[in-house]
Parts: sequence; structure tokens; C-alpha cells
Amino acid sequence: MANVSGWSDRMDVNERVERALVRHLRDRARPSKLAAAVDHALFPGGARVRPCLAVGIAIACGDDRPQVTDAVAVAVEALHCASLVHDDLPCFDDAAVRRGRPSVHAAHGEAMAVLAGDALIVLAFQALSDVSAEAGERLPALLSIVADSAGMPGGLVSGQALEAEEVCVLEGYHMAKTGALFIAAAAGGAAAAGGDVALWRRVGEGLGAAYQIADDIHDRAGASGSLGKPTGQDALNARPNAVDAYGLDGAVARLKSLIEETAASVPDSEAAAPLRRLIRAQVDRFVPAHLQAAIA
Amino acid sequence: MANVSGWSDRMDVNERVERALVRHLRDRARPSKLAAAVDHALFPGGARVRPCLAVGIAIACGDDRPQVTDAVAVAVEALHCASLVHDDLPCFDDAAVRRGRPSVHAAHGEAMAVLAGDALIVLAFQALSDVSAEAGERLPALLSIVADSAGMPGGLVSGQALEAEEVCVLEGYHMAKTGALFIAAAAGGAAAAGGDVALWRRVGEGLGAAYQIADDIHDRAGASGSLGKPTGQDALNARPNAVDAYGLDGAVARLKSLIEETAASVPDSEAAAPLRRLIRAQVDRFVPAHLQAAIA
Repeated sequence: MANVSGWSDRMDVNERVERALVRHLRDRARPSKLAAAVDHALFPGGARVRPCLAVGIAIACGDDRPQVTDAVAVAVEALHCASLVHDDLPCFDDAAVRRGRPSVHAAHGEAMAVLAGDALIVLAFQALSDVSAEAGERLPALLSIVADSAGMPGGLVSGQALEAEEVCVLEGYHMAKTGALFIAAAAGGAAAAGGDVALWRRVGEGLGAAYQIADDIHDRAGASGSLGKPTGQDALNARPNAVDAYGLDGAVARLKSLIEETAASVPDSEAAAPLRRLIRAQVDRFVPAHLQAAIA
Repeated sequence: MANVSGWSDRMDVNERVERALVRHLRDRARPSKLAAAVDHALFPGGARVRPCLAVGIAIACGDDRPQVTDAVAVAVEALHCASLVHDDLPCFDDAAVRRGRPSVHAAHGEAMAVLAGDALIVLAFQALSDVSAEAGERLPALLSIVADSAGMPGGLVSGQALEAEEVCVLEGYHMAKTGALFIAAAAGGAAAAGGDVALWRRVGEGLGAAYQIADDIHDRAGASGSLGKPTGQDALNARPNAVDAYGLDGAVARLKSLIEETAASVPDSEAAAPLRRLIRAQVDRFVPAHLQAAIA
């Protein structure tokens, strides 16, 4: 648990993630217009929940190969940003605004947005490749975790594609669209540090499910623009939303039990408290104040 | 050289590539609309030059881990098809036709075309992940070769992005847009079989350069539709073309010397003859008959 001090101060973990993103991107960001679009997609970031989760879990597992941990954090954040860039394109959500400023295609054009997303998907694997020597015998598990979280049949790309299917089951949609990357962050953080991948995968599943329900509640009951994005988008884009499925009270109750179960599933250690805080923080970010009393 | 019979009959190599593509895609092609778009992008293929090159070079190196060879072949073909799907999008070439039939976005819509390209990029890495146990100590080199051929700074994505730069040097553009994947096929085929990666990388560089010049000559002097795509596209899209840079005679002379040098750089072995034929076949496919006499 040598590096747990890096996680006890949450700011350190965020800074570590930012430094890792810069490090893996810096020497390869070319040509200039593509580099600018990729930079726009990655910096400044949102809450960096996924990479912070990966780092936090790696720390809980001992973080004995910190360069490998950092690469996993970069991989999950790069995939997340890639999916945002492509989801915002005119042929999907046609979102002109992301995180309170122009989306990548609004600022850099559609062509550069498509390529920036592509480059970010590849960057996830380049980050793993950058640390293949340090990763050693852990590389196969990391490659599998990252690739499957992104691709078919159950990763991000399939999750996004589910929106176009006539029958889109809410759980399967949430699992692929959101859960897959939380699972990759959790399982990848554990695998980077030689931890118990199956155990931490379940934590990722729980947090991913909670995150998606919280996001759905925000989309229906939150203040537009309060998280740097408009609300009401699911109805506008005919996407499944947990509030439709369970009602607002039902969704809030479901979120509450998910948060409790997931926080309880974190094994006790010096790193447990900040991880549980990270999990509970998803409520604070997404759920409107007047509904938080029902969850706390 | 146990498997050289698989290469002495060219049909066998093509069939091996098709089977490998089906094998790595089959169990993960979901959901249905995305699967249909990916299938459209991959089947039926074009000449499968890159994966056949990878398999041919692996055979020349002994092909002692054929599953790993196959995965490399799938990876380079998946990346190639991904780049075609995204390059055809309205925000790039806006090509309604590819290989004599509707392009992916024309047939499946823009959203599915974006996602199919994304899924194919990821499939390249899933294919490597599928054989990580067999690849063993060769996995890091394979991951590096495949990732760098696709991403920044010198891979496919950067090559496509160079089209948007004010100053686009022809050699750098060709190297990234076309050369990178030929290099990955050659170096990856060698790495899959434990061969001399640096030596075969040079063969890939030569073939990639020859292929791009042949393609440029076809675009300027070929019959429109004769390769399943219209000619004159480089001028229409203001892309650099070797015929502008060197003149038609100069481009043909350059192609001739590249083909000779590249064929000569193939080390003598039982597999050398079919590999040299593959290299020369790029002339037959792309260069109009009335110009071939100058090359033969």
C-alpha cells in the first residue's frame, strides 16, 4: 500500500491522471489540426471519473507498477473522450456544446472530429503499448479489458449502436454504453497492479450502473447546463432512460441501493474511504439537490 | 518452412485470410445494425493485399504460430476497411460508391458508418487480444506495430488528417496514409512468426510506396470505375498526387524502380517467388495497360 498517500489526497490522483494524459499524448500529437482537435477533446477534461477510479483501485491493490496504472487510466479516458466526440457528431446527437464550450466538430469541423475520435481510440492502445515492458505478464489481461470495453459485442461502440435498434433493452444499453468503461477502469486498475480483477470488476459494474441512473435522473430532473450539457436529450433523441422505466422515485430508489451496494463491495483498506467517496460523489454531481435527501 | 505450401497456391492464402476474418468477427458481431454495417465494410473484400502480404511474409519466416499470423492479417485488414469507411463519409470524400457497390454510409447511414469504422479499429486490437496466449513474448511488438500504423503521429489517422494541412508533403502523406499499413502488414507478419522485423519492414515500405504511386497513376490515367472506384478524385479533393509531383512519365519511372527494388529486397526462400508476384501484381491492378510496357 506504498502509494496510498497519492490517493488519500484526491487532488494528487487528478493531477497524476492529467500528467499521464499529457505524457502519452505529447510526442505523438501530429499533424497540427488533428492534434488541436484531440487536445480539445481531452483538455480540460470533465470529472475524470474513470481514470481516477482506475488509479484509485490500483492504489488499493498496491500500485506496484505505477506506469502501467497510468497507461490504463489514459486508455479509459481516451476511449471515453472518443465516444463523446463521435456521439456529438451531427449524425448522432448533433450537440454543438460539450462541457460548456463548443463540441469538437463545432470547433474543428466534422472531418477532424471523426479523426480525433479515431486517434483517441488508437491512443488507448498506444498507451498500453508504451508500457508493455513494465506490464510484462499483465499485458494480455490489460489488452483484453481495454479492447472489449470499446468494441463489439458489449463495449462502447455496441452501446452507441444499440440506440439504433428497434428493441433496446435498458440494462443492456446502459451496460454497454456506460458500464463497459467503468468495468474497464475498475478491472484495468486492478489488473495493472496485480489485484483481484473479478472482485474489482463488480465494483466497476455497480458504479457504472449507478452513474448511468444518476445521469438519467439529471437528464430528466436536473437544471439544463448545470453539468455543462443540456437536459432532456434522451427524450429528444428517443433514447431509453431509467426515469421512464422506473419513474423518478423508482430511479432514485434504485440509485440509492446501487450506491450502497457498490460502496459496501469495496474491500476495507486504507484506500477504501476515498474510493467510497468517489462512488458517492456521483450522486452529488448528477442528482438535483431536492432529490439527494432521499438518497443520503 | 512447414507451411510454405499454403502460400505457393495463392488461393489458399486468400481463403486463409477470409476464414480468419470470419473467425475473429463472428462471435462478437452485435447489435444487428452495427453488425450489418461492419459486415458490409469487410465482405466481400478488395484484393486483401495487406493481409495476404502479412501471411506471405509470416510464411517466409516459418509461420510457426499460424493463429498469431492470422490475427495480424485480420488487424491490418480491419484497420484498412475502417479507414475506407471513414474516408468515404460525407465530411471527407463523400463517396457513394466503393468496390462497385454502395459505400457503408450510403447503405447503412452515416451514424452506422462512423460506428462501423470505430468497431473495426477496435477489432484490430481484439484480434491481437484473441491470440495473446499464443503470441506470448511476441505480443508487445505486435501491439506496437498495429497501434502505430493506425494512430498518431505516422499512422493512418494522421495520414488522413494531413489532407487538411496547408502544407502537405507528398512523401509524408503517402507514408502515413498508405505506407503505414503496408509496413504493419510486413513487420507484423514477420513479428508474428519470429522473423527479422527490420528487414521485412523495409519490404513493406517499398511496397507501400509503390502501391500509392500506382494508385495515383490510376487516379490520373486509369479508366473510371475499373477498380470499383471513380478516377480523378485527388484533383476533386485537392489531394497530393505523384503525377502532379513527377509528371506521368516520372511517376511511372518511379514506380518501376520501386517495384524492382522492393522485389529484390525479398530474401531468397521458397516463399520469395509468390511474394515478388504479389509486389508486381500491384502494377497490373493499377496501371493502365498502355503504361505497363514502360514498367515491365
